Amino acid sequence: MENRTIQELFSRKSVRVFSDEKITEEEKRLILEAAIQAPTAGNMSLFSILDIQSQEIKDVLAKRCDNQNFIAEAPVVLVFLADYQRWCDVLESYEMTIPPMGEGDLFLAMQDCIIAAQNAVVASESMGIGSCYIGDILENYEDNQKLLNLPKYVLPVSMLVLGRPTKQQKNRTKPERFKVEDIVFTDTYPDKDTEETREVFKRKLNVGDAELKQRLEGYSKRKFEAEFRMEMNRSSKAMIKSWNK
Amino acid sequence: MENRTIQELFSRKSVRVFSDEKITEEEKRLILEAAIQAPTAGNMSLFSILDIQSQEIKDVLAKRCDNQNFIAEAPVVLVFLADYQRWCDVLESYEMTIPPMGEGDLFLAMQDCIIAAQNAVVASESMGIGSCYIGDILENYEDNQKLLNLPKYVLPVSMLVLGRPTKQQKNRTKPERFKVEDIVFTDTYPDKDTEETREVFKRKLNVGDAELKQRLEGYSKRKFEAEFRMEMNRSSKAMIKSWNK
Repeated sequence: MENRTIQELFSRKSVRVFSDEKITEEEKRLILEAAIQAPTAGNMSLFSILDIQSQEIKDVLAKRCDNQNFIAEAPVVLVFLADYQRWCDVLESYEMTIPPMGEGDLFLAMQDCIIAAQNAVVASESMGIGSCYIGDILENYEDNQKLLNLPKYVLPVSMLVLGRPTKQQKNRTKPERFKVEDIVFTDTYPDKDTEETREVFKRKLNVGDAELKQRLEGYSKRKFEAEFRMEMNRSSKAMIKSWNK
Repeated sequence: MENRTIQELFSRKSVRVFSDEKITEEEKRLILEAAIQAPTAGNMSLFSILDIQSQEIKDVLAKRCDNQNFIAEAPVVLVFLADYQRWCDVLESYEMTIPPMGEGDLFLAMQDCIIAAQNAVVASESMGIGSCYIGDILENYEDNQKLLNLPKYVLPVSMLVLGRPTKQQKNRTKPERFKVEDIVFTDTYPDKDTEETREVFKRKLNVGDAELKQRLEGYSKRKFEAEFRMEMNRSSKAMIKSWNK
């Protein structure tokens, strides 16, 4: 394939162990600029980014995100915030009435926020800098709100850690994705029977029926029944409630 | 700048008028593959994509998305779905109990969905194919659910239209974004007074105080007080309710 950009989109995988080589201020700036240049609803840029430089805050976030120490050790930690506050504030400063905020505003701001984050990931990858999304930033909303001084219409939606991959991380095999046929459908969402549903997963995991069941039991324990998921659900619900209050 | 990927991230702007030149099946496939290769929480790929080929469905979507005719005329229309159904179904097929779904699951699936959509945008741009996000797909949830045959844990979160830009669209100036200093903050979210808040917008719009007020009044009428925003809020709330029901 001759298209370098697409090559990078294909080869990008999460990096959780970083080499000692620094990320320069210039590199970081370029990544942040690329994030800000992302598509945004109505050119409103409904997001902000916190560049977490304080080791103390990194440590707290690493702990709160299920004790993932590599967060504390990452050279760059960026918290991506859905942010409608900027617009609310400037409108209010001219005493303009803002019609009640709602879930649609939240979803649009979340989209702006994630689109920008993915631009940061793509920019990083193109510079040989690895990245990892930390979904756990959705947990512990109230505590993170205090820690990061977030006003009402600013929610921590996503977190990225960036750093140069170690050799071992570079050589790690990227986990298999689903096939196009399993993700992309023409016109409408397909009805699938049990056998078809299982086939999709067997193809992806390259396993038979018995092993699929075992793997799913593993997923259930590690993910679906895990405490962090319950906290993520509780915390995300609290975010919506706070937004609408 | 020598990095082509970053150049593309900087220069990408929305395209709403398309030339007659087709997008080949091969090109579309590459864009979809790039979307599927995107980062995803726990490698779960909590999203699906509908490739809307039916002109009838395109027409309905264009109408429902506030009568934006260019949607009906776009060579490629992709609806990006947050999708937890795939996992729910396969687990249930082995009679595994799924703990109650919640807002955190929804937010994670939305993130997977948007990250994949942005990969599609970046891939398209690298191939000279223009794109435009259609946030209005968040409206009319119940009707779109029926139209697209969406089960409970599949929500239409984003839509992309793709096509080759006309010459006029290619030459259109990209709207100014906020400055890095206005979007990126160190460690915590800053408290801003009225003057600082306004300065951010004056810088962005390159206007003085009086014109800023006028511009914001325009935004209010066109966006914040618009009917489509009320519908988007209603519909998004209905999505969350349906997800949790």
